Amino acid sequence: MAINPNAEIEVTAFSWVPQPAQGLVKDLRVRWALEEAGLDYRVRLIGMERPAGYAKEQPFCQVPCFREGAVQLFESGAILQYIGEKSDKLLPRETQAKFRAIQWTYAAVNSVEPFVQIRVLLEGFWADQDWAKPSMPTFDQYARLRLGQVAEWLGDREWLEGDRFTIGDLMMISVLRIGDRRGLLDNTPKLLAYMKRGEARPAFQRALEDQLATFRQHEPQGEAA
Amino acid sequence: MAINPNAEIEVTAFSWVPQPAQGLVKDLRVRWALEEAGLDYRVRLIGMERPAGYAKEQPFCQVPCFREGAVQLFESGAILQYIGEKSDKLLPRETQAKFRAIQWTYAAVNSVEPFVQIRVLLEGFWADQDWAKPSMPTFDQYARLRLGQVAEWLGDREWLEGDRFTIGDLMMISVLRIGDRRGLLDNTPKLLAYMKRGEARPAFQRALEDQLATFRQHEPQGEAA
Repeated sequence: MAINPNAEIEVTAFSWVPQPAQGLVKDLRVRWALEEAGLDYRVRLIGMERPAGYAKEQPFCQVPCFREGAVQLFESGAILQYIGEKSDKLLPRETQAKFRAIQWTYAAVNSVEPFVQIRVLLEGFWADQDWAKPSMPTFDQYARLRLGQVAEWLGDREWLEGDRFTIGDLMMISVLRIGDRRGLLDNTPKLLAYMKRGEARPAFQRALEDQLATFRQHEPQGEAA
Repeated sequence: MAINPNAEIEVTAFSWVPQPAQGLVKDLRVRWALEEAGLDYRVRLIGMERPAGYAKEQPFCQVPCFREGAVQLFESGAILQYIGEKSDKLLPRETQAKFRAIQWTYAAVNSVEPFVQIRVLLEGFWADQDWAKPSMPTFDQYARLRLGQVAEWLGDREWLEGDRFTIGDLMMISVLRIGDRRGLLDNTPKLLAYMKRGEARPAFQRALEDQLATFRQHEPQGEAA
């Protein structure tokens, strides 16, 4: 439940990213899960210039990577499951409940995230492309469709499968936060409230603060506000 | 390993889809896994008009849904894992090997699929949008970047983690097939060969034929070639 240089578990994260990505980089998902599970971890920081051979650890040259002893993983979904196997606070043991939680992690990263993530590209890397701005209403419409479907499912539930928070909620809320930064949750107040319930958890707060503290420490010269 | 109306396992699939989607609809992933595992299943067919209340089973109104006794799931990634737990042919039991296989299912659906899937939308639903065609080179460039990273990882391996086929390969190959339909694998011959190794598996062949046979049986009047 804290960063500890001697911990067995290692999480690889970026030392710094530009402001729009701060608080959204995917190591946050893993930090959050570790905090919920009460597990210490150490952080390996890497820069935008990836270490030599990094693609052998993470083929897409992204973060997070995860290591514990002989176990070495990338993809936050798989890492959340691995942590969930260590802590039934995050992943129920009964078959149906377990696979429902797992199912929602896939729903988050495959059925929702691509539709909210595209805005990050349209407003970032691709902002200078002539087609980027005209395409936004269509992409936003699709994002809102998917977000509305999650809102419809959620209804008055506290968490996606009822009264128990799982890795499915952790992943879905992490994805909703991307959309919320772009105002895509404005029409779905219950979904926004669900996201805020997740963000209010002490484990999330600690994880977020630890990610942001790292970025503050590594703020490039001349970029401080 | 065959469709059997009395089987415990039920897979929900579409009775018919337009030609460009045939052979790519996601129930194929589940059928393929069941064939690999040697498990019988029955098929519940639904039309483009979803049955009343279907969003309570599948919030995004997509297929597949999966049912076995009290277990009811959507999202092909979670279903593949559930099947993998029944058959170590698809999901190794040793921790590192198991989570590596799981990791590749997330890599397929989150780090690769969104980038190849966008072409389906640009050439389909969004084809009449002014920005759709000008945007294609950028989207294709990203798709090729990600596909190249998978190719780089794969190198001369037979499967993603060596000589053993897992649900990770099943999912990655399913995703590569989307890109291949649009010629996105032309520059990565080893990746194309890997995909073809997957498609050559008898279990894949049976699953594909069963999906396509259903579509032939339900071809709308006047749409037959």
